[in-house]
Amino acid sequence: MAAMGEVCFSLPLWVEEYLTSFDFAATDEERMALVIGAARRNVREDTGGPFAAAVFESATGRLVSLGVNLVVPRGLSMLHAEMVAFALAQERLGSYDLGGPGVAAHELVTSTEPCAMCLGATCWAGVRRVVAAAGDADARAVGFDEGPKPADWVAELAHRGIAVRTGVMREQAVEVLREYRRRGGMIYNPGRRD
Amino acid sequence: MAAMGEVCFSLPLWVEEYLTSFDFAATDEERMALVIGAARRNVREDTGGPFAAAVFESATGRLVSLGVNLVVPRGLSMLHAEMVAFALAQERLGSYDLGGPGVAAHELVTSTEPCAMCLGATCWAGVRRVVAAAGDADARAVGFDEGPKPADWVAELAHRGIAVRTGVMREQAVEVLREYRRRGGMIYNPGRRD
Repeated sequence: MAAMGEVCFSLPLWVEEYLTSFDFAATDEERMALVIGAARRNVREDTGGPFAAAVFESATGRLVSLGVNLVVPRGLSMLHAEMVAFALAQERLGSYDLGGPGVAAHELVTSTEPCAMCLGATCWAGVRRVVAAAGDADARAVGFDEGPKPADWVAELAHRGIAVRTGVMREQAVEVLREYRRRGGMIYNPGRRD
Repeated sequence: MAAMGEVCFSLPLWVEEYLTSFDFAATDEERMALVIGAARRNVREDTGGPFAAAVFESATGRLVSLGVNLVVPRGLSMLHAEMVAFALAQERLGSYDLGGPGVAAHELVTSTEPCAMCLGATCWAGVRRVVAAAGDADARAVGFDEGPKPADWVAELAHRGIAVRTGVMREQAVEVLREYRRRGGMIYNPGRRD
């Protein structure tokens, strides 16, 4: 019989200190600076891939959750930064829908445009807006595969009522990807074997 | 400061009894029968959406993990059946890559063709084959959105070395979708609000 089992995951310990006294960020750039700083820290602490994401309450700028890539250290391929951020935000709000009735609008701020999996997850999470820094091409340039993603993914999100802003502090996010590569970080997409 | 938190999930208790004395399934049809039976049971036990999936070792037919949709009861939008099956399989094998060096080939057997999120996740999980029953159109017919998925998703997987067989026991899987709808089951995709 297959093991029943339980799956658990949590953020690296350094995150608690990283977020000390952080509560709100008014602008896209302030929000993104927090996210890119977390991606850089994740690389330097060697606790996962060079990606971070966060869920903010759109109007107030309140930080609801931060996620970092945990795929290799945690041994679960689904733990991209966006997935971790969505799960922690939903756990905090007690709902699978971050845009449900009576819930304030939430948005995802991510250091790199979402891969195919995270793009789909963005539709199901209930966020109303996505802000991204590095682009798909930047991720591919260091060896990551963004997966089977429609070319018009921004339009696909718009069609579902999710606004997208790309390229916010792109250079800073790209520098984190490059730092990861320089340090010999693992490019771990199974699909790249072929 | 945002809560650090931990996220955990596990299968409904009925799964243990459902899998009693089940170890191997030789053919696609035997594997799919187990999966569709789990989807039906998930609906009747009211423990989630009308979807199930499993990871099998391709050559031996050994069941590695079973997943069912847990989105609404667990309050996490990422917990589609395929994601649960991948996570439990990776936990059992101790690796984020079900197709890594020295690992036997694994495959995903799913009661409905993967949505956009699960399609991306399939690329990252390391499985070499996907077997599906109901199609995207069948899911849409009962009100589910499959998300921003490339029209040529089968070719996209093939391009990444993942073979696909669709339509295996489709009618039985569609009947589970219809039963869910007849029972007034929640169609919960946030994107459908718009």
